[in-house]
Amino acid sequence: MYFTKSFIPILKNNPSEAKIKSHQLMLRVGMIKQSSSGIYSWLPLGFKVMKKIEQIVRDEQNKIGAQEILMPTIQSSEIWKESGRYEDYGQEMLRIKDRQNREMLYGPTNEELVTDIFRASVKSYKSLPQLLYHIQWKFRDEVRPRFGIMRCREFYMKDAYSFDISDDAAFFSYNKFFLSYLRTFKRLDLVAIPMAAETGPIGGNLSHEFVILAETGESKIFTDKKIFEVNSDDTKLEKQSLEELRKKYEKFYAVTDEKFNNEEFEKKVTEQDRLITKGIEVGHIFYFGDKYSKPMGASVDLTGGKKVFVKMGSYGVGVSRLVGAIIEAKYDDKNEVMKWPISIAPYDVSIIPMINKNDNTALEKSIKINTEFIKNNIEAIIDDSDENLSSKLKKMNLIGSPFQIIIGNQADGDTLEFKETGKKSTHIKLDEVIKIIKKEKEKI
Amino acid sequence: MYFTKSFIPILKNNPSEAKIKSHQLMLRVGMIKQSSSGIYSWLPLGFKVMKKIEQIVRDEQNKIGAQEILMPTIQSSEIWKESGRYEDYGQEMLRIKDRQNREMLYGPTNEELVTDIFRASVKSYKSLPQLLYHIQWKFRDEVRPRFGIMRCREFYMKDAYSFDISDDAAFFSYNKFFLSYLRTFKRLDLVAIPMAAETGPIGGNLSHEFVILAETGESKIFTDKKIFEVNSDDTKLEKQSLEELRKKYEKFYAVTDEKFNNEEFEKKVTEQDRLITKGIEVGHIFYFGDKYSKPMGASVDLTGGKKVFVKMGSYGVGVSRLVGAIIEAKYDDKNEVMKWPISIAPYDVSIIPMINKNDNTALEKSIKINTEFIKNNIEAIIDDSDENLSSKLKKMNLIGSPFQIIIGNQADGDTLEFKETGKKSTHIKLDEVIKIIKKEKEKI
Repeated sequence: MYFTKSFIPILKNNPSEAKIKSHQLMLRVGMIKQSSSGIYSWLPLGFKVMKKIEQIVRDEQNKIGAQEILMPTIQSSEIWKESGRYEDYGQEMLRIKDRQNREMLYGPTNEELVTDIFRASVKSYKSLPQLLYHIQWKFRDEVRPRFGIMRCREFYMKDAYSFDISDDAAFFSYNKFFLSYLRTFKRLDLVAIPMAAETGPIGGNLSHEFVILAETGESKIFTDKKIFEVNSDDTKLEKQSLEELRKKYEKFYAVTDEKFNNEEFEKKVTEQDRLITKGIEVGHIFYFGDKYSKPMGASVDLTGGKKVFVKMGSYGVGVSRLVGAIIEAKYDDKNEVMKWPISIAPYDVSIIPMINKNDNTALEKSIKINTEFIKNNIEAIIDDSDENLSSKLKKMNLIGSPFQIIIGNQADGDTLEFKETGKKSTHIKLDEVIKIIKKEKEKI
Repeated sequence: MYFTKSFIPILKNNPSEAKIKSHQLMLRVGMIKQSSSGIYSWLPLGFKVMKKIEQIVRDEQNKIGAQEILMPTIQSSEIWKESGRYEDYGQEMLRIKDRQNREMLYGPTNEELVTDIFRASVKSYKSLPQLLYHIQWKFRDEVRPRFGIMRCREFYMKDAYSFDISDDAAFFSYNKFFLSYLRTFKRLDLVAIPMAAETGPIGGNLSHEFVILAETGESKIFTDKKIFEVNSDDTKLEKQSLEELRKKYEKFYAVTDEKFNNEEFEKKVTEQDRLITKGIEVGHIFYFGDKYSKPMGASVDLTGGKKVFVKMGSYGVGVSRLVGAIIEAKYDDKNEVMKWPISIAPYDVSIIPMINKNDNTALEKSIKINTEFIKNNIEAIIDDSDENLSSKLKKMNLIGSPFQIIIGNQADGDTLEFKETGKKSTHIKLDEVIKIIKKEKEKI
């Protein structure tokens, strides 16, 4: 992609309305554009990152056997009256009357709708477990939208729902998502800690929030530092292995402020291991048994004619929110350097030629390099604009390809000035560069 | 995928509420489920087909240099007041008041929003042309939703928009989409005829509808049969080649009833070549110059300080509607046989073993075959249910994998009963089967 052909509207300075660094960067580098309060359009750069995150989230859902569906954004109020949540939800729910004066709403979450699909489709315990998910736009009419796409009104989420015959079977499903989330966030190069959490308006009595550390986070967190050493590398998608994984994490104190108890904290965590910091919620999982299946009559037949209300859980990842969360975790706003994890980077590498009037040598060299990249499945952006080298570098530091190649106007022989974004340059040959980038991409 | 693990709720009979065959099949075979009037959830089988269509549409947009963005579903009324369409749109527009009592709406189309993005982002003629597209849910509050997803309220569309400096440059963009659409529909195994059309509420004076023939179509069409011989195989993405393509099509009379003129029809088309039939609109392209850019002030600077309002076109493909349109074109409802084009089939092949009590030989054979398929990137569904062979066949004829393998309980040596769905069986070896399916997939 040539920068001059791309639709990447860059701002010279940080927009004054943006208070946190993800909002600043996203506006600055044309990833998003606000269309109205708390509602954003995603421009090509932001869209590319979000789509790559979406694909990783999807892939990890498929790996645990969840099946993808797609529920609509507009729902009827009727099912919400069945579950009893229509009034509970308050003003955050965007309520709509259609031309026939029917009460509709823009889905803020989908427990009711998925339960309605399930009860119409599944009759026998033999069809269980069922894990269904969708990735769809949701709307919550925040009274004060802020922080760009971190606390906006229209947002993109993956929601999964599990249906099981018993609590025991349902915990197995719950633990599958627990593992899936750890793997998802790892592929996004994030360290997400599962923390015991309140269930809030979703309900139920078992819940974990997945939180990444970030100074600008909205949640205060209290944790044992040793939890960062736990990992899921050896965990298998089997009942016992998953239970062990849960236990490994739950050995360590880790809660958000709503669950915080100082006495317990001090008792369970040695002084040197106590960490009080801030975090961003990137995922949340819930087990709520028959909270929806019972009032909505979602049951399956057992052998012998008995019926049982299915036991359900729900599992959310904020896909659009993750774009901002990753910026909060990775963006060095002092030096104005962003380096996207290569798994979700908009481009693998920026090619930055110095272009002088009447001298296209560096640009031509860039195009040749890009031809080799394309052959090797490496995606590059070439800054073919007529800006000077330092303003090009500044801009590409914001765009955030994890690697950069700088092509000055003096001949460098067959070595290239190559760098990891934000680090020091080295001078190596093109085939070395290709090897390094390909190796990095293989890790995804 | 095992049928018993899948979420494919099959109905025994055609649902009585469905009047056309796409609606019948989609409900019958669990591709969709109505959630409220004119609003549907997409279940795994329907979702898979729609996603594959979306990917082909996307791919062909990228090939002509269009860049993908994503505009939100909920828009502010303000930009619609700027363009003057807020009142025009009438009751089909779903109007919403948010908690701050602001007038919002669920986007029925996006000319205003994309013009707003453009005017905030592009200042110079040097950045033109720009082709932007998005694939997003839209809402039109139909007074009488019907025919399933063919005339529903919430639907999934690809919308593209072009921005150019002059009429002449804009026609080049228009023609790029013209070609892109022909290629898209061809990959979906559809013969779509571009027809001169009215511009309706979008406005402008140049427009083509892309129509596929189908008895159940809502548009009456009048055309010269010879138009079916025209193709875009040799067309290049160049100005002149594209103009020639347009001319090749426009040589032949082809209009929908709103543009029909009998005298002209009889004068231009010989009697034996006159075709009066029905069709389904699957795409629609418009050129409308500065209809939106002028009232909304979307201009670019020319050299010398002059400004010009950009010349715009818009280009729509109904992604969700195509699922139904393809069924209308391909489904043999008399014999209840659907055969999806392999480019968008939910599965490449159905493996149908005869399973008797205490005898799993055929199922085991199926699993072995599937292992080979997976190695060859062929996606199969195995009907591991305990139904009898004839009801399995009936069901798989509805699911519509383009190929079927039937595994009876007598030993067939190393040959398999293999058939193209809806055709006669042959007995061939597995490696032959793999060769045939792979060859078919390569054509996509």
